[in-house]
Order: sequence, then C-alpha cells, then structure tokens
Amino acid sequence: GFQQSQMAQWNRSGYFRSSGSRDVNPDLEAERQTASFSVERLTAILDGEAVIHSEPGFSRENQYFQSQNERYEAAVRRSVYLKEKMHQMGWTEDGPEIKYCYRALGGDLAFNVHRVFKNSILALGTDEQIAKWIPLADKYHIIGTYAQTELGHGTFLRGLETTAIFDISTQEFTLNTPKISAMKWWPGDLGRSATHAVVFAQLYIKGKCYGLHAFILQIRSLHDHSPAPGVIVGDIGPKMNFEHIDNGYLMLQNINIPRENMLSRFSQVLPDGTYVKRGSDKINYLTMIVTRVHMLWTEVIPMLLKACTIATRYSVVRRQSKLNPGDPEAKILDYQTQQQKLLPLLATAYAFHFMNAYVNEFYNKGYTEIKQENFDSLPELHALTAGIKAIITEHCTAGAEVCLRACGGHGYSALSGLPLLYTKLAASCTYEGENTVLFLQTARFLVKCLAAVHSGQPIPPSAAYLSSVDSGKCQARTKMDFLKPDIYAEAYRHRATRLLGNAATKLQGLVQSGAEQHEAWNQCTVQLVQAAKAHCHYIVVKNFIDTVEKLRNEAEIQKIVKHLCDLFALHGIFSNMGDFLHAGYISGDQMDMVTASYLDLLAVIRNDAVPLVDAFDFTDESLNSALGSYDGHVYQRLYEWAQKSPTNKQVSQAYARYLKPLFQSALSKL
Amino acid sequence: GFQQSQMAQWNRSGYFRSSGSRDVNPDLEAERQTASFSVERLTAILDGEAVIHSEPGFSRENQYFQSQNERYEAAVRRSVYLKEKMHQMGWTEDGPEIKYCYRALGGDLAFNVHRVFKNSILALGTDEQIAKWIPLADKYHIIGTYAQTELGHGTFLRGLETTAIFDISTQEFTLNTPKISAMKWWPGDLGRSATHAVVFAQLYIKGKCYGLHAFILQIRSLHDHSPAPGVIVGDIGPKMNFEHIDNGYLMLQNINIPRENMLSRFSQVLPDGTYVKRGSDKINYLTMIVTRVHMLWTEVIPMLLKACTIATRYSVVRRQSKLNPGDPEAKILDYQTQQQKLLPLLATAYAFHFMNAYVNEFYNKGYTEIKQENFDSLPELHALTAGIKAIITEHCTAGAEVCLRACGGHGYSALSGLPLLYTKLAASCTYEGENTVLFLQTARFLVKCLAAVHSGQPIPPSAAYLSSVDSGKCQARTKMDFLKPDIYAEAYRHRATRLLGNAATKLQGLVQSGAEQHEAWNQCTVQLVQAAKAHCHYIVVKNFIDTVEKLRNEAEIQKIVKHLCDLFALHGIFSNMGDFLHAGYISGDQMDMVTASYLDLLAVIRNDAVPLVDAFDFTDESLNSALGSYDGHVYQRLYEWAQKSPTNKQVSQAYARYLKPLFQSALSKL
Repeated sequence: GFQQSQMAQWNRSGYFRSSGSRDVNPDLEAERQTASFSVERLTAILDGEAVIHSEPGFSRENQYFQSQNERYEAAVRRSVYLKEKMHQMGWTEDGPEIKYCYRALGGDLAFNVHRVFKNSILALGTDEQIAKWIPLADKYHIIGTYAQTELGHGTFLRGLETTAIFDISTQEFTLNTPKISAMKWWPGDLGRSATHAVVFAQLYIKGKCYGLHAFILQIRSLHDHSPAPGVIVGDIGPKMNFEHIDNGYLMLQNINIPRENMLSRFSQVLPDGTYVKRGSDKINYLTMIVTRVHMLWTEVIPMLLKACTIATRYSVVRRQSKLNPGDPEAKILDYQTQQQKLLPLLATAYAFHFMNAYVNEFYNKGYTEIKQENFDSLPELHALTAGIKAIITEHCTAGAEVCLRACGGHGYSALSGLPLLYTKLAASCTYEGENTVLFLQTARFLVKCLAAVHSGQPIPPSAAYLSSVDSGKCQARTKMDFLKPDIYAEAYRHRATRLLGNAATKLQGLVQSGAEQHEAWNQCTVQLVQAAKAHCHYIVVKNFIDTVEKLRNEAEIQKIVKHLCDLFALHGIFSNMGDFLHAGYISGDQMDMVTASYLDLLAVIRNDAVPLVDAFDFTDESLNSALGSYDGHVYQRLYEWAQKSPTNKQVSQAYARYLKPLFQSALSKL
Repeated sequence: GFQQSQMAQWNRSGYFRSSGSRDVNPDLEAERQTASFSVERLTAILDGEAVIHSEPGFSRENQYFQSQNERYEAAVRRSVYLKEKMHQMGWTEDGPEIKYCYRALGGDLAFNVHRVFKNSILALGTDEQIAKWIPLADKYHIIGTYAQTELGHGTFLRGLETTAIFDISTQEFTLNTPKISAMKWWPGDLGRSATHAVVFAQLYIKGKCYGLHAFILQIRSLHDHSPAPGVIVGDIGPKMNFEHIDNGYLMLQNINIPRENMLSRFSQVLPDGTYVKRGSDKINYLTMIVTRVHMLWTEVIPMLLKACTIATRYSVVRRQSKLNPGDPEAKILDYQTQQQKLLPLLATAYAFHFMNAYVNEFYNKGYTEIKQENFDSLPELHALTAGIKAIITEHCTAGAEVCLRACGGHGYSALSGLPLLYTKLAASCTYEGENTVLFLQTARFLVKCLAAVHSGQPIPPSAAYLSSVDSGKCQARTKMDFLKPDIYAEAYRHRATRLLGNAATKLQGLVQSGAEQHEAWNQCTVQLVQAAKAHCHYIVVKNFIDTVEKLRNEAEIQKIVKHLCDLFALHGIFSNMGDFLHAGYISGDQMDMVTASYLDLLAVIRNDAVPLVDAFDFTDESLNSALGSYDGHVYQRLYEWAQKSPTNKQVSQAYARYLKPLFQSALSKL
C-alpha cells in the first residue's frame, strides 16, 4: 500500500543508509570517531551494565501503552522472574549482578518496599527474628511492606498515631488505628501484594507510652490472599507515575500479635511488662538510612545517567536551524544554550556516580559499628545520608526535567522515555524523607559541629573542614586559575563555612535577644537550608576532586574526568553566583573569569559528549527510548512505536456519539 | 461492617466537626476569620470565576481514573456541550463567560488546536476565505487542526519540508510529504478528530520556492471520517499528560487542492502563476502570537492559580511536627521554609494575572494595526509576546512543581490535582515556541533596540527604559527602603540594562576580533538568554507596580496587593542575588537588607494567604483536588476518592499467576 511505498521512498531519500540492516545514524557515528579516550576503559571504571541484555523475562516492550493494572502485573512478573534467575545463577543478594539488574530495569520491579521490610528486620530484629523471617522473605514465600507513614504523618515520626498496647495477661500486643489520620497510607507493595507488614506504632505498657516501635504482623491470608480479620487494606489510587507500584492503605482494628513480633534488637518488652532498651532513640532511623543509601544507586543516579544518554544522543541527531546561513542545519548540541543545558548535567551524573562510592564506604563502616551497638557514628551517618540523599535527588530531578525539555516536543512523548524518568525522580525528592526536612537535619548536625569547633571539641570527619582557617579572598588571577581544584574547592569551602556561620550567628542573636529556641530556629530555616546545601555541594565537589586524583594511573581517562570535575565545579559557581560574590570572596572580575572558563569547558566537553554517555553502557532495552537508542534512528523509531499505540487501534465512540451529526451538516456546504 | 463503624468512631474523635453536614475544617476556617481585606472585593477586581458551578455536562468526576480513550471522549463531550451551551445562552466567542469556562475547565477540553486553525484563517485568510470557513468551524461542522510542526522541524519554520507545488494547467496546488522527517507530527485534534487542516508547506511555482505558506485541506471524509485518499493520519501515542488530546501525525501523497485554498490575505498566487506579496515575511508568526497570548490566560496562568490554591489550603490543614515542644503540632504553613516555597508563588500568580491584562492590551492594539496592513508593531509584538510567554510558562511550571512538592507525599497522588497541573504546565514551556528559542528572539530584538539607543534612533515603548541614564548605585539605606517600588524597580532596570549591555559588548568584541556573525552570536547565547529574562522580569515587576498604583481608590485592596508586589520583587532579587551583586549595584550589606525585608514579608503575607487564594474563586469542581477543596477535609476526601480507584476493583492476575504458589510454601512454616 501507500504507506509501504512511502517508507521505501524515504529510505532512498537518505535518512537511513540502508533500509535492511540498521546502520547507525551517520551524525551519531561521527561523534564516536573522535573520542579523546577509550570508552571501554571508562566503562570498566564506571562499573557499567553488562549482564542483562535481552532477557525476555525482563521485557519492557510496550510499557508505555500499558494500563495501571498491566504495569503492576508486569512488575510482579519481572520480579518473580528475577528471583528465579538469581536462584538459578547463584547470584547473591546485593551482588554485582543484582546491582546491574536494578540499574538496567530502572525500578520497573515490584517489591521494592519488601526490601525495606527485610532491611528493617535485619537492622532492628534479634538474631532469632532474623532467622525466622528473612529466609521466608528472601524466597518471596511472604511479601512484606514497611508501614510507617500514615495519612496524617510522614516526616514527624513521633507524631504517628497507630497504637500497640501490651497485655501482660495474654502476652500479646493489640494494634489499632485510632483515627482516620492514623491510617497507614503510601507504603509500597501494600495495596495488592503484601502478606505481612512491619508496622510502626506507639508502644503502650500499663498505660505508659514508650514511643515508636516496629511490629511484624500478617495482613493477608496465605491461603487465598483475603485481608486478615480486623484488617482493611487497599490501594491508594493513581499517582504521578509508579503505576507498577501498589501503594496502599491499612487500617487495623484490635489486631493481636504475640510478644515476639516486636522487633527487639534494641528494645524489648519482657513477659512481666518491663521495658528494656539498648541503644539510641534514633535507632528507628537506621532502616531509613539503609533505604536512602540503597535508593541512590539502584534508582536515582542511574535515572539521571539514562536521561543524559537519551538527551545527548538525540542532540547530535536532531538538526535544527543554521549556525551559518550557507551551511546545512546544525546539530542542536552545537548550540551553546543546548550545551549549557546538557553538559553540566553530564558532569553532575559523573559527580554523583563517584559520590555514591563515597557514601557506600561511609555507610558500610557505620552500619557495622551500629549493629555492634556502637552508636557513635549514628548522628554523622544520619546527617550525611540525609543531606546527600536530598542534594542528589534534587539535582537528578531538575536534571531529568532539563533533559526532557532539551529534547523539544519529542521529550514530552512517553516514547522518549524521559517523562517516566522525570516523574520517578520527582517523587524521590519526597519519599524516604522530604528534602527540606532532610536538609534541616543536616543543618542541625552542622550547627552542633560548629559549636564543637568553637568550644574545641572533636569534629566528625565530614565537617572537619569547618575548623580550617579562613583563606580571605580567592587567589585566582586568570580564568585558567579557575581550572585548579585547590582554587575552586577553597571557594566552595568558604561558601559553606560562611553560610553556616551566618545562619548560626543569626540563630544565636535571636536567642540572645529573647526569642524562644524553637521560634528562633524556625526564623533561620531558609538560611539553614542554604547552608546545608552548600555543605553537601562542597562534599560532592571535594569527592570529585579526590576521584580525579585517584585516576592518576589512567592518564587518558583522568584528563577527561578532570574536565568534568572542572565543569561541575564551575557550573555550580556560575549558577550560585550570589553566594560567592556576597562577602566578596570572589570579585566581580573573578566571576567573569569563572564564566569564561565555564563557557570554554562546554566546548571542550562537547566533543566527547557522546562517548561520555556511551561509557554508561546502557542497552537499548534498558533505556527503552525512541530518542536515545545507540543507532540514533529517532524519527523512524518514533513513527514505528506510535503505530503500536492503542490510540491507533481503539475505535473511539466520540465520533459516532458527538461529532458525526455535526460533520454531516457541513456536507451540503463543502 | 467494620469499615462503617470505624468511620463513625473517627468522626466522634473530632476530625470532622459533624459527620452529617460537611462543615469547614476549623483550621481552615480560622484562617478566613482574619483576612485583612474583603475577599469578595478582590475577587471582583480579579475577574474571578462565576458562571460554571455544577454543570453536569462539564463534569470531571473520576477523571483521575480514566483511560486515555475515556479522557479523549470526555473532552470531546465537554467541548460539544460547551458549544451547545454557548448557542443556547447566546455567549459570544471570547466573551467573559467563555473565559470563565476555560479558566474553570483548565484545558480539559478538546479542539484547542481547532481554535488555532480558526485563528490562522482569521489572521491569514482573505475576507472570502473567512466567510467560507469560519461559520463552519464556529459550529463544529468541521474540526480543523493547525499542521505546522513536523517530525524533523519545530522551531525552525524555514526548515519545514512539506511541499505545495502550483500547477498552472490545473490551477491546483499538489501537497506532498517528501521524507519521513517532513511528516506533520504533534498537531492537536489531528490524531482522531479533525476533518480539515491548515497545512504549512513550502510553496513552489515554476520550480521556484517562495517559502512557507498556509493551505486548507480536507483530511477526513465528512461522511464516515475515513482518511481522504492519499492521506495517512494517526495518533502519535502517549505523552506526559494530555491524554485528552489526540496529537497526531499526517502524511500527504499528491493531495490536490484548488488555488483558493491558500490563505491569501498577505500573499497570493494569481492564475498565471504570478506571486503577489503584501506585508512582512514574518506574517506567519501572527497565528503563533495570537495563540501565545490566548494560552496564557486560558490555561497557563489559571493553572498556577489553582496550584497555589490547593497547596495553600492544604498547608493550613496539614499539621506536622512542633514549633514549640509543649504545643500541638504546627500548621505547615507556619514553617518559614513552607512560606518561602508557597508565598512568593502566590505573589507570582498575582503578578502574572496582572501582566496578562498588559499583554492583552498591547496585543489588541498591534493585531488591529497588522490586519490593516500596518506592520510596524509586529517586531515588538512578536518579541514581547515571545519573552512573556517564556517567562510566564517557565515560572508557572516551576511554581506548580514547588506546590506539588510542598504537599509532601500527598502532592504526588493524582487525587491532589497537582500532577495534572504540573505536567500540563511543563509542556507549555515547549509548545507554541520553545522557551530558550523565544528568549533568544526577545534578545535579538533587544540588541537591535540597544543599537538604536546608541545611534539615537527611536526605541519601541517596551524597551524605552534602555535609554535612561544609569543611576550608579542602589540608594537603599535600610531594609524598609527595599519596600519602595522606586528602589526595586530601579534595581531590576539596572540589572536588565547591564546584562544586555554586557552580552552586546561581548558580541561586538567577538565580531570585531574576526568571528563570523553567527558564530559570535552562538557564543553569546547563554548570556543573551539571561539578558532577555532580566528584561521580561523587569517588565513584570514594573507592571505590578503600575497595577498597585491604579488601585489607589481601593485602599484595603491596594495595601495587600502592594505587599504581594514587594514580595514578588524582593524574592526575585533574593533568588538572583548574583545578578544584582555582580557589578556592585547592590552591596553585600544591602543584600542582607533585601533578605531581611523579604523574610519579614513572608510573615505578613502568611496571615492573608488563605483569603488571597480564596479570592481566585475557583469552585471545588474546577480544582478537582482532594487536598484543595474549600472545606479542607483532606484526609476524608483522599480516603473516599481512593475507594473509587479501579485498582480497588480490578482483580489482578498477578496473585494467581505468580504469587499464590510462592505464598503457599510459607503455610507450613507460619
């Protein structure tokens, strides 16, 4: 028919080099000829994707056309398949293969909160509790959820209203949802899947409240999946994205569970009702710390890498307008404004990838100590992971939005893959800790550190820089000086120290002039958030510099990574000029040098942009993007994929019902 | 059953003051007792919603649970109903009632591009063409689309590849889609609805190309809606939001249309093939100008107003954590960080609402002149509407995202209404002109204006400020001085002038040192975009100041609007500190005063926040939000609405297929 002949004619017109074998788009191929470094070597350093290529069990084909119900079922299917695969291949939990799978499947799996359920038992459970529940959970013989958040309370854990009352006579806890705002609301895997839940509730013994504790209870029958007696459970309905996740609600009425179902590693109720506590009040944060660290590398950071890959590849295939009147249309990545959108993000993607290694090392050390009942590092671990989770999710979300918008109209097509990435990332700014609240937790820690500096107490390592001597003014004299890590690291350090110092001074001043401590704190929070962000930003820059340093035996790779580090740092100064100019640490003239060096770097990174995203080594299946595939045949793929849309198959009743009678009135006139 | 008894018990527990009649949540009611002004008076000034209350024909009930197909049908239904209603009530096109309807229905209508189709005929068509097509289009006897964008070209109109070849022997144009990238792609109402299209194509006469022209052609049968011969048409598939819109693709093979189907007000092909032109090359921009002006008041600005209403009301109902240890939990709007998120947006909503009046006045004057073939104001009208469209969509999008995130987890629930508002606004940054491209068009105009200043030529009114004498340094001495409109207007003016001057100087320097004009321009575009944004920002601030001035006979209203104007202006300085500090126009000490005044204003506006959003006068039906209703019963409504979700009715096969066998393995162990 016409359609086929038209396509054949178009193929001859040169958009495809051959209509049979799918060659790479020549514009994209040209970019790969000029890499200034070995892409494979960089991929190896980055620990890229390698295992999951075309496993049909993981297929996400037609994902963008699926209903909520289909997406949920597909996620369950993939997760169960992954479990079988693990068993069959002998992969370990959290081993490298699983890491690859998470990275590749980009969170399109079910049972993410089941993992949190397990982690909470591993963190808060006794050895007996671990031995009982973990093997069942590991095999998916039960599916658990982590029921902490309630309809009325998210960030303020102490305000949770679910109750667990201990009855000495029966040796049982009775759990209740005393009011509508106490309903558990949001937990993933709860709406349809879970058989069990770790439920956080206020513990009461003999009428006295002992605060929040975690309890394991069964919520659905293992026979037929019906809700357990006294349990009302359901799905909270549609969200922005996350159709594959069954976020749920849970109401409890007089649910009795045995004494041994309270997670008791750090606190315990004895048969006579005696309450025994080991460790810190903050121990309930431990599961959240684990979860925050985990989400960064399984979901958040890989999603920014994917968005960069899609937008960068598209930007060398898409040609639009002319740079010079006589030339062919230019690749959009040759426009400075497009470079400014995408290339700093590429640098950010590398910065966060490297930051992740730092956080994991920090976390592993701390977690081991805490499990051994040494709680010294808990405050720093909590403050660091809170701030880093916040800054990374913040920048990844903003970054994915920039990538989406940088692809013009086609970015808004679901087929680009970008709407899915963006909307997932947006939620990560709130789940597992709302970012403003997290920054304020980091700020609280920093204010304490600053007080310790002033009173000569020891300072935790991540804030040790607060005790360095102030260096006065920035020493740069030329724009080249701003490519020296010492120069920009010092600028970031100065900014972090100054913003924290100013906020702390304001706080102290308010208290000294008679304000209540809490009110004074509230009046400083806008500035405290700024200080916490500056602190986290400094840590990320510092870690990037250290990473470049460590690549000293890989000269070729080190050179390009150093460019990325420079770009990340200078873009941060350029984008937050006021912070650096305010106290005159950087002068207006120096800021012009920063701007010049920053804009120069865009042109440098531009040349390696495609190899730099190729090095992330995502497969086409994993990107699932009509714009971002390795071969760059974006228009062909958009058209082919659109054909499959149900909107081209369903017959809409709108025509017959509403339009046909109207159109027939025009027949006599046209 | 249990569920009913539980609800009754919760009602007794005090969340609802009465379980029968739905009283207003007392926290929300308290906010309304303290308004410092008459809400009704402000509503009247704002021209709020008044007509559409509970028209069942416009119902958006269960919208959040609808499939793509259902949403499309509902949008068609509402549009056809609205047309009937208009006829029945005698409402005029673009009259106040229709304005209310658009505002209330928030774009959940079909045939938005049908309106562009009509506007393009009205703008570019001869009187005969208007007389033939407009009555049919007005009655929906035909549905048209505006087929400009192609798969391969959006912003670069000259690059469009569809061809229209004039054949003198037949007196017809033959239209073709010569390659895949030339396929029309994205036009709304094209995928399923349209019978006709205004198609933009390169006009060829006797082998010579005369550039882009607009042609009317029929694409589907008026009998049975099947594609016309030689036409391939379909839907482009899922997008981020806009399920109700059938964006489509269109391929043409040898479609012949009569000579009179070229829109010929400004250019014409005579029977002998002579090409006659009246007016500017830029005349094709006219439809885009009309559309940009229209989209701001029908969709973009009302969506920010809605997002502010939802987030503000929720923020006085939601209580979380404690400001003082002994107190009840605080309303989240009492936290400074929450105020900083929402209150500047509220000020922005007012700023843009008032800006809209300015743009419309400007536009009406220009449009009338152009239709009378006086094209003098076209460049300024184009530059102003481009920049204002860009700055307004940019801020509204960012604002809706802030509102969404400021509602914590519940903001991500579709039931909050915020995901729909956010994703719609995000697209507005790209459709009808990609914002970066638009800012650069404004910048190009400004660079010309600056050259005119230097050569003593006359300056168009919107850029006249460029010729004022520079005032040196900011004259403020106290934080109170920053509440003087003269002081902050001058700061914005200085910033706009400086950024433009710097970019122009750099541009000139590059050209003088031998760079090609186009390459030099490209190297300045990051800074030119900044300059254009600063220009638009100044215009919005200046217009806000003028609006306050005009309210001099409404002292009570003027006072609160003045606070909003101050907040808008100071928030802009606070958020773009670097621009004002860079050249020392504002010193570090003065910036501390700005910060102090800005933070003080948050507390002032906080007290009137709820009345200020009430004044927008959106009905609950129009907001369609579980979080934002007038009565503030957010938890109850979230729970009730979630019950209706199909996820609580569909039986998923995931359980039987994948999970049941696994769970039964646990039976023996638990």
